[in-house]
Amino acid sequence: MKQVTIQTASKTYEVKIGVGMTDEMVSFIKVSFPDVSKIWIIADEEVYKLHGSSFKEVLERSFDVTTYLAPKGEKAKSFHTYEEAITHGLKHQVDRKSLVVAFGGGAIGDLAGFVASSYMRGIPFIGVPTTILAHDSAVGGKVAINHPLGKNMVGHFYQPEGVFFDLRYFSSLPKIEVLSGFAEVIKHAFLSDLRFLNEIMHSFKSVEDLNEKFLTDCLVRGIEVKGKIVSKDEKESNIRAFLNFGHTYGHAVESASGYGNRTHGESVMIGMIFALHLSKGHAGLAFDLDSFIHWVKSLGYNLTIPSSMSFDTLFEGMKRDKKSLNGKPVFVLLKNIGEPLMADIEEEELRLSDDFIRRL
Amino acid sequence: MKQVTIQTASKTYEVKIGVGMTDEMVSFIKVSFPDVSKIWIIADEEVYKLHGSSFKEVLERSFDVTTYLAPKGEKAKSFHTYEEAITHGLKHQVDRKSLVVAFGGGAIGDLAGFVASSYMRGIPFIGVPTTILAHDSAVGGKVAINHPLGKNMVGHFYQPEGVFFDLRYFSSLPKIEVLSGFAEVIKHAFLSDLRFLNEIMHSFKSVEDLNEKFLTDCLVRGIEVKGKIVSKDEKESNIRAFLNFGHTYGHAVESASGYGNRTHGESVMIGMIFALHLSKGHAGLAFDLDSFIHWVKSLGYNLTIPSSMSFDTLFEGMKRDKKSLNGKPVFVLLKNIGEPLMADIEEEELRLSDDFIRRL
Repeated sequence: MKQVTIQTASKTYEVKIGVGMTDEMVSFIKVSFPDVSKIWIIADEEVYKLHGSSFKEVLERSFDVTTYLAPKGEKAKSFHTYEEAITHGLKHQVDRKSLVVAFGGGAIGDLAGFVASSYMRGIPFIGVPTTILAHDSAVGGKVAINHPLGKNMVGHFYQPEGVFFDLRYFSSLPKIEVLSGFAEVIKHAFLSDLRFLNEIMHSFKSVEDLNEKFLTDCLVRGIEVKGKIVSKDEKESNIRAFLNFGHTYGHAVESASGYGNRTHGESVMIGMIFALHLSKGHAGLAFDLDSFIHWVKSLGYNLTIPSSMSFDTLFEGMKRDKKSLNGKPVFVLLKNIGEPLMADIEEEELRLSDDFIRRL
Repeated sequence: MKQVTIQTASKTYEVKIGVGMTDEMVSFIKVSFPDVSKIWIIADEEVYKLHGSSFKEVLERSFDVTTYLAPKGEKAKSFHTYEEAITHGLKHQVDRKSLVVAFGGGAIGDLAGFVASSYMRGIPFIGVPTTILAHDSAVGGKVAINHPLGKNMVGHFYQPEGVFFDLRYFSSLPKIEVLSGFAEVIKHAFLSDLRFLNEIMHSFKSVEDLNEKFLTDCLVRGIEVKGKIVSKDEKESNIRAFLNFGHTYGHAVESASGYGNRTHGESVMIGMIFALHLSKGHAGLAFDLDSFIHWVKSLGYNLTIPSSMSFDTLFEGMKRDKKSLNGKPVFVLLKNIGEPLMADIEEEELRLSDDFIRRL
């Protein structure tokens, strides 16, 4: 088992990565919440079908448990599902001494975290991420649901009590979800150092290729990069916004595709290439973008933007991004690998990078 | 102008009470938020009709302003209105450098505070309460919306940047709203000391009677009582729950009446009499309850519980209260005036106090 400590202004907690983590979590709950009244599992219904019953069984040996099943993926993050989850809690006597356990991918973590942060003005929660992508969102306390006008527009900064990664869940991930998750690992490499990036590009040749040791190593290093940034700026007053690298254009693409129709990570990968292209022109980045794109394509990322998705639609999406100020989109660019900066970019420049992406 | 400083673990801010407070607020915003991008007024549509245009005009001289009008009273605190408010913000380019101003009674403060706490994961807000009742809710950072299964079930602890009480707004309050507000003043007296309570009972003989000096004095003392408790326990881990005195049965009555059909304060007044009756039997309280009830009735409080509202309905409501543990209702009782304590009470005992209330 590997362990990373996340230290923020509001809370310090452990992220544990290994095999057989449910028992580990039960021990943690017994020590940290000796008078817990109920465990409220909020789970992705698809993930629950695969791994839920054994997970619940272990918890039920020690606790009173109720389970709310949310729809798969981004559909979990609607206002409707949020309200339905709250209703479930109230109907099943979840009270202020109860504990939420988020069981699923990043979307479930975001939903369950926001439910926990607002249910009776806040009850504690634990993250049990079942995807690689969630190595990113499960750490750092950003919880949220979506609005038709933009992703993650409603939420809180609310840290979990702990995060338990069980590698066994990853074996059932489809290829497209592995790629989605690795996009955020690669983002963390871009924000950290060229060596980490080169190691991934060197070691990761195909999804079928992945071994447990390399995967654990990538997760630990990615979480460390994120933890370091979040410890300095929990509420995104300044440097935490760097973690948005690739997300401005990426979110616009994801949103215009209709949430759930394109994976988050693939959208971020397209967004990172967009931001790297901007970085070459606006921040003097020296980077072999062509080789990177070649590698990314060889892994199986689909970088195609459908022609029905106009630049104007994406531009509107970029303007609605939370980093925007006075309606003008703001981007995270790289001066060098590991040296991010923020810049607002004119519409015409964005159009040029959009053209570049469409020619890939 | 009078001023009370509220000091909590997460924030320290001023509550200012006087006449002509809009200019005072504009000065405060200019100093505290020099680069504010927009002022987002979230207002009660009825209050806005009376006082909104002059309020907005003063703000517009200095800032870019957008206004969202919510329905009057508890209807403001629905999931629907919450979502609609968020949509308004997104459509009107409210961003992370914007500031919410809650303009209305307690319900608007609760809604606007929850919107502010969750919009893009939290933007600052200022309270401009226009009712006496809101002297309670505007201070202390409890923000929330309602669920059909219970009041304030979804919310957050989120402190305002400042609160500005303009006494001019109180002159347009109907009698029933003055009574509603004074119930919380009286609650603060019960939680503080017998002298404060006696002074109110002695000085407050009719709603028509109220003068500005007495009213200001009551507000300042009520806010001081609340501020003292909140400073010791911002997130209701222990003593803050005492502020729930009268609210367990009161919320059940308010909820069973349908939100907005009975004022909050009148419901709390009934709940306080219920809790005082319990306190005599369970906490040894020596208090002339008959005289108190006589005074309360003479002021115009309607204490009647309709026979269609069964004890069982109210009992279900009490069990859903946030203070409940393992489905059992918990009450704030008084050992003496100014000496609250918590106690869980059996159903049969609750039935006896319910009978007492129905015979008033």
